Amino acid sequence: MENIKTRGYTATDESGKLSPFEFERRPVGDDDILIDIKFASICHSDIHQEKGHWGKQIYPQVPGHEIVGIVSAVGKNVTKFKVGDRAGVGCMVDSCMECESCTHGEEQFCERGQTKFTYGFPNPAEPTGITQGGYSDKIVVRDHFAVHIPESISFEEAAPLLCAGITTYSPLMKANFKSGDKVGVAGIGGLGHLAVKIAVSKGAEVYAFTTTADKVEDIKSWGVKEVIVVDEEYKSMQAYGKTLDYMICTIPYQFNVTPYIMCVKPYGSFTLVGMPIKSEININNLMLSFARVNFNASLIGGIPETQEVIHYCAANGIRPSIEIISAEEINEAWGKVVNKEARYRYVIDAATF
Amino acid sequence: MENIKTRGYTATDESGKLSPFEFERRPVGDDDILIDIKFASICHSDIHQEKGHWGKQIYPQVPGHEIVGIVSAVGKNVTKFKVGDRAGVGCMVDSCMECESCTHGEEQFCERGQTKFTYGFPNPAEPTGITQGGYSDKIVVRDHFAVHIPESISFEEAAPLLCAGITTYSPLMKANFKSGDKVGVAGIGGLGHLAVKIAVSKGAEVYAFTTTADKVEDIKSWGVKEVIVVDEEYKSMQAYGKTLDYMICTIPYQFNVTPYIMCVKPYGSFTLVGMPIKSEININNLMLSFARVNFNASLIGGIPETQEVIHYCAANGIRPSIEIISAEEINEAWGKVVNKEARYRYVIDAATF
Ligand SMILES: [Zn+2]
Ligand SMILES: [Zn+2]
Ligand SMILES: [Zn+2]
Ligand SMILES: [Zn+2]
Repeated sequence: MENIKTRGYTATDESGKLSPFEFERRPVGDDDILIDIKFASICHSDIHQEKGHWGKQIYPQVPGHEIVGIVSAVGKNVTKFKVGDRAGVGCMVDSCMECESCTHGEEQFCERGQTKFTYGFPNPAEPTGITQGGYSDKIVVRDHFAVHIPESISFEEAAPLLCAGITTYSPLMKANFKSGDKVGVAGIGGLGHLAVKIAVSKGAEVYAFTTTADKVEDIKSWGVKEVIVVDEEYKSMQAYGKTLDYMICTIPYQFNVTPYIMCVKPYGSFTLVGMPIKSEININNLMLSFARVNFNASLIGGIPETQEVIHYCAANGIRPSIEIISAEEINEAWGKVVNKEARYRYVIDAATF
Repeated sequence: MENIKTRGYTATDESGKLSPFEFERRPVGDDDILIDIKFASICHSDIHQEKGHWGKQIYPQVPGHEIVGIVSAVGKNVTKFKVGDRAGVGCMVDSCMECESCTHGEEQFCERGQTKFTYGFPNPAEPTGITQGGYSDKIVVRDHFAVHIPESISFEEAAPLLCAGITTYSPLMKANFKSGDKVGVAGIGGLGHLAVKIAVSKGAEVYAFTTTADKVEDIKSWGVKEVIVVDEEYKSMQAYGKTLDYMICTIPYQFNVTPYIMCVKPYGSFTLVGMPIKSEININNLMLSFARVNFNASLIGGIPETQEVIHYCAANGIRPSIEIISAEEINEAWGKVVNKEARYRYVIDAATF
């Protein structure tokens, strides 16, 4: 069994600058598949993690957890995939597979703490000692943690569904809104723009909140009811107090949560899916008691639901708005993501690694 | 119409020291009643507010929002009470009475922002310019904001129900737990000990979390399933991870919310009723996403529900654990409340003002 020679782009420190990298992945085990990566897209989380915003990292570390490609080898126990299948990998690549969470499709909450995230996670089986992500031309992954990509969606449009899609789809489905309910989406980047499209598709009357005025026309074209351009004093939001049945917020940094929470009707729910630096959120408890809103947070989604969102988007014409780039444009793209200039997901052509 | 001469105890600055005070209240208006106060109990909020923990105060300010006594005069429009009735006043004394919240029994959330809290709230009708609370021998209050105290409960035992009772009863009822559900109560002081007694009475299997080991025997005597003495590293709580259907937390200062939230089952709810200094709560968003818990806050309760909790407690044998003190013992009692030495509510005999 030979290690798999791989080319990719890696972080080597907290600078947020990536560079070309040749490395090896573990051999294809009995339960593994090897994927020839076609595209991998850029998530704001890649940037947070590689810059050390969520804690110290081990380098070199190849980011990327929105990965699609073609299966090029399978282990002897694998029945889920065969060579030539289209496959995708998201935020996780392994877990215990035996605990209650794992056996109920919530592998991200493995009770034994054995969820392995796609990059930067210690794994002695990998020649580099950690999991290495999708900014690369090949990946070896346990079959359960790959999903099928139907022919009806292109690889490049499927890639962002693996994190941005599932991360917004999962809480939106749990919110259980009815057709015509008013759903707010705050933060219209990679995650938010998919949240808008999914919520519109599911029949919600969508209110999109963005701080970037030049996104308004794009957002309107996705079928929202209204776009609210949020000003520094939150004045534009005041007219929306207590109007929404539900709100999902994808803002990926620390911000003043209160004006957003105040837009939700009493006894409605608010979900935060953005993970700010250190994961710290400050809540004004008095305002939360006035709002009477249920505040919760959501982390990606399980494998069965990841498969579900891909089938749902493929079948219902939901496509991320993307821009394809080559490997050497990654560093520039990261800068644009941080500066809110992405429209709305950069997808790396893996042929350029 | 004459002002009402009143004797009480007042704060004069942020020192947290009270002193005897003679002052006047507004005359009894057409919609008002005058109550000869019999007892007023001490809430931790009194201390927070008078010390300026929630913002600058106007002094002299008489605290107290757990007030019971006998109606001694009524305005000409008043039909709710007659002279000689037993009456109680809690955290509010007025609101617009016309908006949707006010007309639906949630006067604390008056849409017009006209909720007048019982003490320290600007009110030009009062000779002192602010509302003055229950550490005194008389109070004038709009009839709607007083509730009836049935004969089946003593004045001194009814007093703590006006804030501690309703503040815990309201979220417990909204949590809608079933008989046998596991309900956690964190912080076993004035509010928490009533939360325990109410939840036990409603059929919950109650888990009480306290940092004060010498409260264990008391708490057990109230019918809880278990008492957990919380240690500084939260080790004693680990065995309770994801076990509770619901948790109410009454801790009245900033604390590490995460270990408490982690005790609630995924998709369960957690209510914070303690109001820390500046109302700031720090949440670790990543841990909240792992917990999958709905976090909310609750503020007192409306007048109809305040009447309900008093009838419920009176009829079902729920009595706060109290210690009666005289006016001159108030300062000492405040110190004991801060030092967690109260067992569990100090009730001031208003005859001693
Ligand atoms: Zn992501
Ligand atoms: Zn597991
Ligand atoms: Zn109180
Ligand atoms: Zn009102």
